[in-house]
Parts: sequence; C-alpha cells; structure tokens
Amino acid sequence: MKRRVGQYLMDAVHAAGVDKIFGVPGDFNLAFLDDIVRHDGVDWIGTTNELNGSYAADGYARIHGLGVLVTTFGVGELSAVNGIAGSYAERVPVIALTGAPTRAVENAGKYVHHSLGEGKFDSYRKMFEPITTAQAYITPENAIIEIPRVINAALRERRPVHIHLPIDVAMEEIEVDNPYEVALTPKQDLSRYVDMVAEKLNNAKQPVIIAGHEINSFHLHDELEQFVNKTNIPVAQLSLGKGAFNEENEHYIGIFDGKIADEDIKDYVNNSDVILNIGAKLTDSATAGFAYEFDVDEVIMLNHRHFKLGNIVEEDVTLPNLLADLNNIDYHYDGTFPTFKKAEEGNYELTDDALTQETYFKMMQEFIGGDDILIAEQGTSFFGSYELALPQGMSFIGQPLWGSIGYTLPSTLGTQMADASRRNILLIGDGSLQLTVQELSTMIRHNIKPIIFIINNDGYTVERLIHGMEEPYNDIRMWDYKALPKVFGGDNVAVHDVKTSNDLKRVFDEINDAPDQMHFTEVTMNWDDAPEKLRDISKAFAEQNK
Amino acid sequence: MKRRVGQYLMDAVHAAGVDKIFGVPGDFNLAFLDDIVRHDGVDWIGTTNELNGSYAADGYARIHGLGVLVTTFGVGELSAVNGIAGSYAERVPVIALTGAPTRAVENAGKYVHHSLGEGKFDSYRKMFEPITTAQAYITPENAIIEIPRVINAALRERRPVHIHLPIDVAMEEIEVDNPYEVALTPKQDLSRYVDMVAEKLNNAKQPVIIAGHEINSFHLHDELEQFVNKTNIPVAQLSLGKGAFNEENEHYIGIFDGKIADEDIKDYVNNSDVILNIGAKLTDSATAGFAYEFDVDEVIMLNHRHFKLGNIVEEDVTLPNLLADLNNIDYHYDGTFPTFKKAEEGNYELTDDALTQETYFKMMQEFIGGDDILIAEQGTSFFGSYELALPQGMSFIGQPLWGSIGYTLPSTLGTQMADASRRNILLIGDGSLQLTVQELSTMIRHNIKPIIFIINNDGYTVERLIHGMEEPYNDIRMWDYKALPKVFGGDNVAVHDVKTSNDLKRVFDEINDAPDQMHFTEVTMNWDDAPEKLRDISKAFAEQNK
Repeated sequence: MKRRVGQYLMDAVHAAGVDKIFGVPGDFNLAFLDDIVRHDGVDWIGTTNELNGSYAADGYARIHGLGVLVTTFGVGELSAVNGIAGSYAERVPVIALTGAPTRAVENAGKYVHHSLGEGKFDSYRKMFEPITTAQAYITPENAIIEIPRVINAALRERRPVHIHLPIDVAMEEIEVDNPYEVALTPKQDLSRYVDMVAEKLNNAKQPVIIAGHEINSFHLHDELEQFVNKTNIPVAQLSLGKGAFNEENEHYIGIFDGKIADEDIKDYVNNSDVILNIGAKLTDSATAGFAYEFDVDEVIMLNHRHFKLGNIVEEDVTLPNLLADLNNIDYHYDGTFPTFKKAEEGNYELTDDALTQETYFKMMQEFIGGDDILIAEQGTSFFGSYELALPQGMSFIGQPLWGSIGYTLPSTLGTQMADASRRNILLIGDGSLQLTVQELSTMIRHNIKPIIFIINNDGYTVERLIHGMEEPYNDIRMWDYKALPKVFGGDNVAVHDVKTSNDLKRVFDEINDAPDQMHFTEVTMNWDDAPEKLRDISKAFAEQNK
Repeated sequence: MKRRVGQYLMDAVHAAGVDKIFGVPGDFNLAFLDDIVRHDGVDWIGTTNELNGSYAADGYARIHGLGVLVTTFGVGELSAVNGIAGSYAERVPVIALTGAPTRAVENAGKYVHHSLGEGKFDSYRKMFEPITTAQAYITPENAIIEIPRVINAALRERRPVHIHLPIDVAMEEIEVDNPYEVALTPKQDLSRYVDMVAEKLNNAKQPVIIAGHEINSFHLHDELEQFVNKTNIPVAQLSLGKGAFNEENEHYIGIFDGKIADEDIKDYVNNSDVILNIGAKLTDSATAGFAYEFDVDEVIMLNHRHFKLGNIVEEDVTLPNLLADLNNIDYHYDGTFPTFKKAEEGNYELTDDALTQETYFKMMQEFIGGDDILIAEQGTSFFGSYELALPQGMSFIGQPLWGSIGYTLPSTLGTQMADASRRNILLIGDGSLQLTVQELSTMIRHNIKPIIFIINNDGYTVERLIHGMEEPYNDIRMWDYKALPKVFGGDNVAVHDVKTSNDLKRVFDEINDAPDQMHFTEVTMNWDDAPEKLRDISKAFAEQNK
C-alpha cells in the first residue's frame, strides 16, 4: 500500500491507540498537519502554546496510554522541553514529534529561520536525548523501521520519545506492506528474581508493599491487586503514584509519606522487615524529605528496569513481566496490619466564616466519587488532596516528582479529551494557574466540561511555606479570575464564587445539578492557610536546601 | 570583603549594568532571591512563567546591554530553553541563572523533586550547552573566577550563558578582594584583515554594505556610521537587524530583502562588485528565501568571529575590533547609489471601511517617531513594519531569525523596564498574543505604559499564507481581547477598538493626548489580509519546504 510517511505515522500512532493529536502549527509541520486533519482515526487539538501542548499530551497519555505532541523545529520543540522532561521523570509515554526543514535545506546548511543561524541542524535533537528514551530521524528509507521502533520504545518504557521529521520526508510516498502493530517487551524468564523475592518473603514477619507511579504508568493495577490478595501483604501508597492501588481493598493501609504519615502506618512501615517497593520511588516530596526509619538499602526495589535486592541489581527486568511472575509466589502473610482510616463524613461545620484549607478538603472528600478523574496541582491542592480516599473507579493525577507548577490546567485538557464520559475535577491555585491560563481557552473551544476549582490565596503559598513567607517574590498580581471564562469565549461556563463552607456546599450542589456544563469556581482562602501536610513537607524542603 | 556568593553575583551583574532581574521563584532559588530583593542595585521582576521571563530578559538586554533570568532547577530552566535559544541565535546576552539543589543532595544522588528521579544532576546543564556560549557550575572556591568569566563571555559574544548555582553555594560566604569589572575582548591586531578589505574596495566599482543584527548586539552604530560617512559606501539593511544603521543618513538606501526589494535597491545590491556584509546574516526570512543574485561566496563576511574573504576564513576576529580598525581604511566611493524612499505622508484615505493592513502600516509610519522603541511580532506585524522609516533615535526589535511567536509581548515588558522614559510600541497579532498573554499582567503590576496594538484577524495568518489558508489548524479561539487588561487588574489601562482608518486616527490622537497611560488597542482586520512582503516571503517559505 502506498502511503505518505506522514500518513503512515498517523496510521501507526492510531494503531497504538491514539485518537487526539496535540500541538501548534508552524511552517515546518504545516503540510504534515494536512495528513493529521484528514486522517479518520485522529483529531487535531491545537493548543495555545507548546508547553501547554506537552502537558495536555501528558495528561492524555496518563489516561489513554500514549500521547502525541506535534511542534515545529526549534521554537516549538524547545518550548515543550520542560513538559517532555516531566513525562520522562514520571514515566508517561508521549511522542514529541518535530516537523523540521527539508533534508535539502539541512544538507546545504542553510541559515533558515528557527535555526541557530549557523548551518547546524542537530542541536535540538541532542537536547532531547537526556529526556527521551529513544530518538529517530525519519527518512523515507527508514520510516517503516524507525517509526515502529520509537512508538514501541515509548510503550515499553512508558517514557517520551523524540521524532525528527523533515517536512519533505513527511510528504514522500513509501510502500507499506505491513501496518504497525504494538509490540511490547517479550516475556522474560524472571524465575531467578522471583525466587529471591519469595525467599525474603518466606522469612518475613512484617512485610509491606509500597506501591507507586510505575503501576499507573504501566496500568498494572489488576496484577498488583491480584498479588496482594493472594499474599495478604498490606499496601501503602506514596503520594507519587496515588491511584496505584485500589483504596477500597482491605489490604490498603493508606499513604506513607515518611515521618508525617499517620502513626500506625508509619509504625508498621518503618518496622517492616521486608519492604517490597513496587513501581515506587522514595523521592523527597513523597517522604517528607527522605524521613523514613527503615534502611533503604534493605528495601527490595521492584522498579521497571531496576530490580534490586541486597547486592543484586539487574537493569533488564521489566516491571510488567516481573509483576506477572510475582503472582507465582506461594506466600501468605498471617499477621495483622493497620486499617485504612477514611475520614468520617460531615466532619466539618457549614458556616459563613472564611473557608479554611482543612474544611475545603474535608468537603472535597464528599464531592468526589464514581469514576471521577481528580487532577491536583503541585501546591496546596496536591498536598491537601493526596490523602483523600478514592473509590475504586477514580483516577488521581498529580506531578509530585517533576513538580512543574502550571502543569495541571493543560493536563486536564488532555485527561478530559482522553475520555469525555468521565468527570474531571481540577484543583489548582492562582499562582500555578497564571503560568498556563490560556489553555482554558482550548477547553472552551472544544466544549469539554471539566470542573475547575481555583484557590485564590494571593500568591505562591507553597513557596512561602518553604522560604520567604512575606517576601515580595512570592506575591503575584491579583486577577479577576471569574472573568476568565468569558474572555476566552466561554459564555456557557458556569462561574461560581466561594468564600465560605456554606458557599462551597451550595456550589457543589449546583455543579451536581448541572453536570453537562463546564464549572469554574474561584475559592478564596487566606494567603497563609495551607494543608498540614504541605506545612510539614515545606519544612523538610527548607531543611534540605541548607 | 565578606560576601555571600549570591550577593557577589548580584554585585557583579549590577557592575555589568543590570538593574532588573527577571524570573520565577522556586524552592531551589528562594533563599538566593533574598539577596536579590535586598540588593540596592537591582530590582526583582517576577514574571508569570519562565519562557515569558526569558523573553523579557532578552528584550531588556537588547536595550540595556545585558539581561538576567533566574529560574529554578529543571522545571524552571527547561521552560526557558526556547527563549534562551532565541537569544543565542540573535546574539542577545542573557544570563540564565538556575538555583539548584545543594551539593550534598547532588553528591548523594538523591531522588529530589525537579530531578529526573535517577540521581543525575547534570542533564539540564548539558542541554544548555548548544544554546549558550559559556557555562559555569559555581562553587565557593571558583565563584570569583567563574562568575566574571561567564559574565564577560556573555558580553564579549553577546550571547547567553548558563550558571548553575547550588542553593547552599549561594548562601556561603566568601572573601571578595576585588569587585567584578567588565573585561571586554582585548584589542587585536587586525591590520592584515583590514588590508584585505581595503584591497577589495580599492578596485570596487559599485560597493555596498549590508548591515545586520550584530551591529545592534554590539551597539556598534556609531562605528558603522563613521565608516560609512568616511568611505561614502551606501548601506542596505536586512530586516534581521533593522536599526543597525541610521536611516536618516544619506548613505542609507533601504531594506534589501532579496527579490522582493524595491527595484533600484535590488538592482544596486545584486550588481555590486564588492559586498561588505557587516554583522548581517543572509537568512531565508531576510532574503525572501535566499533570493539574491550575487554570488554569496564572493560576499566579504564581516561577522563576529567569522571573517571571510574569498578563501580566507578566520574565526578569531571580533566585530568590535574589526569595525574599529576598518575606520583606518582610506577609501572613498565616488559613484552614485539609490536614494532611500520614505513613504509620503498622508498616502492613505480616512474612511469608515474595514481597515486594511496596507493602510494600518501607512498610518503607523506617521504615528511612530522620536526615540520610540517599536517591537514587531513575527507575523503580519513584523513583515508590515520592517520597511517603516525610522528616525535616528528610534529602536526596532523583531526576532526574524529565531521567529518564536509570542516573543514580543514579554519582550516588551523587558524593553520598557530597560528604559521607562522611552515610549514602547508593540505590534502583535492575536495568534501570537495567545501564547504569552499573561505577561500583560506583569506590565500592569509594574505600572509600565507601553502602547499595544493587537491585530485581531482570527488566526495564524502568517501560517495560512505559507500553507493551509482555510485549514482548521490555523484557526484559533476568538477571545474578548479588550477585556484582558481588566482581568489582569489594569483598571487604568486605556482600551481602544479599531475597525476603520477613521478609528485608528482617533485612537492615535487619544494615545498622543494621554501619554502617561498604558494603551491597549484591538485592531480588527480581515483574516486573509496581509502585508505584501509577507505574502511574498510566505511563498518562498512554502517553496523551501518542498
């Protein structure tokens, strides 16, 4: 079958499950965009800028399994670097696809716009190497090899890849004999590693699983739960990777966040003699600055391409294969473990006093449910919500390892586009919103209906708590947030104003009564109010910087 | 004298002429920000995001000579990569300063937030290498060597540099015996090169100078004009670097933009037997896609660190030294050359018909003047305004080599902050504005008073003309642009609406009558209207992509 390279590329990403392509036009990708908008399997979602596009592709990929961002050479792809790096850090598969000058222009070393003006064309590609798991320079000759290779790499590693596509190559016809098919990592014989884990478990008096973000990346929720049910080992989650384990499962004990965890969780985990770290990373933000009492060298690390048990370290073991084989272990824990403590309903008062962060999240616990996707920005929103109890069907999205403020608004464009049928709830603060606010326009343009809560607390509260409580650099300009939807043409957006718990109750009711609308709520809270968890972690961060 | 490294760094950039620092707080730079806000010589200008901050620092540097951008590790510095790359391409000296985790955290390879979670801390620094002219990892031991080295490198090369400053290093006290002083490149003996140029000129029948952006970068306007006055050689400017030569000088013949230049300019330049390319680059966007008729190999290239005459190529020759020595040449051109044709005043009609791009720029010619700074976004705005005649005192800022849309709004924050006394006029389109709109908030916050014209023509017109005139990917969301200042708290901004030439005349008058206010004007024009120059160049770009 004859296909242009650009068409074949769209065929391939569509075969990998993609139905939305995010990006920004630029003259080195325009002709290729024709092959996107005319492809039956995919829709073009133009974002207002490339960084926002990369966040949207990341959000889409977290829910949908793979994302694609299309940018132009130089100015476009480099604007997206931070977003792609975040996808790399948190293991989200995004294809960063750059439309580039023709091979003729490159070979002649011409001083074209968007180049550094020195006749070199490989600088940007090299800049992507540390933040992508594979890279390809597509030609008509290698397209049917290289395109499958990098898509498979993204899916196998759950990490971004970079594709450099000269625009003349995109337009060239090639012969395609076999359509692209997803090829994940072949089955590995991991019995040796599983035996080592089994041996440790067989002597365990107080085992625990710490589950984390790689479970979400590889969608291994069922495999993990099967292992847990069979072995009866209790599970703590990190905030990095919340959603990895079914919080309604009786083996769930809660979030382990180092010294600030609930006493009984802390006590159980810190005193465990066998800790299985499954797809988790013990980062500073997840552990209140590495504030755990166990010996990290004794933890059995079951990460993707990082199996570690004592002195045995193996980089070839893949997490999906490992988790499948772990289910062969014949072990059953017979001891006791803490019970997950869900907050009681109605543990707050409805008043006309200024709303507090504490009450806000207590009430949010009752608002969320079903198969909602809860997206929480790295600030008071994330640190206030990572302990909310999630029903089995819910998804939770945060970015606590990469921690790029502004991420969640465009990410919500992606998560909502990934599944229009699920209710998306975005919790974000004013400081973060200001970085990426224009993507609200794209949400409105595509008539999607997330529920958005903006905390207006007049500044970068997360930074204030770390350092400079009253310093001017943590101040921001006060905006008329409630006017934003209308500016972006969102005449149908329901705009709400919350200053008290009574307000919030009323707004929750109004949202529930009008589910077919985008809701945009400004929640005013004190500038120095913050969730307790954030106060504690901020102290740890300040200490770490000394 | 005892100074903390952070204080010494601020002392040094202040000694290099900087009085405003742009950036975004993050926990790896917060403690260092104390040393900025408490420094008598510099003010902190917090931007809404880092890309915008890099554009602002670039704009500030173009007017003020050196800019500084402060970001945090990873998320912050990588968001600014595109802006710093633009400064590299167009030779603008910006110090990209990253506050980073402590040396202790790095040496322990800890999994901290904003890292890729793999214990490596040098990936981002490496990503900056292709787009900066020097890099430094500051320690207490090397601070008094490395900080001067990179500041001097930025000033000598007029290009960005990257500084990695661990936050513990910033806080550490060092002994400073000698304050930093600017050290530009020492005088070079360039007589050999000057003699070669002189020999060529002595046989010249029709010489011409093509002047470009490096003249602006190195502020060599006086030196160039002196050389021109002495030798009587006529000067054409490229659009890349407009402002390099005094357009009121009788030797100025106009813009040479390849085959779309005025006939007499084209005729003179293409038939010149000696072309001195002084600080210019013959890029695609400056020459309608390399559409010149002279042999580029015969052009005498007098660029910074790129002297080329025939087969002689020398990378050590610096432009400031070369231009100083060129003034020793004893040559006088006695032939004729075209006269620069300024547009006649009043060459348009005031009507109530829809305003055209053509009339808009004709009227703009009469509006600008004095020591205005005119900033023109890479779209209809740039291609419509690069042929405007500038009085000697005016400055012109565009970004036609790098060509990153959205650049000019934050850049105008920087240019206006660089000199509050000059009137800044920003010409931008709707598509571009949407990328970086939030920086309007920072302008309002700091009560600066640029004059802003937004062309509302409902999409990416520059892209439409290259490819996809009516394709959906070149559409954008229609915003209520006139509501933006108020959303960002700009109650004192004068907001205007222009749809006809009569409207524009009235608004010009209102602006002139109220110079102590920010003015924000929406100018509605047809979606498919464009300056003639842009139509021509777009065709060349489309051709180049085949």
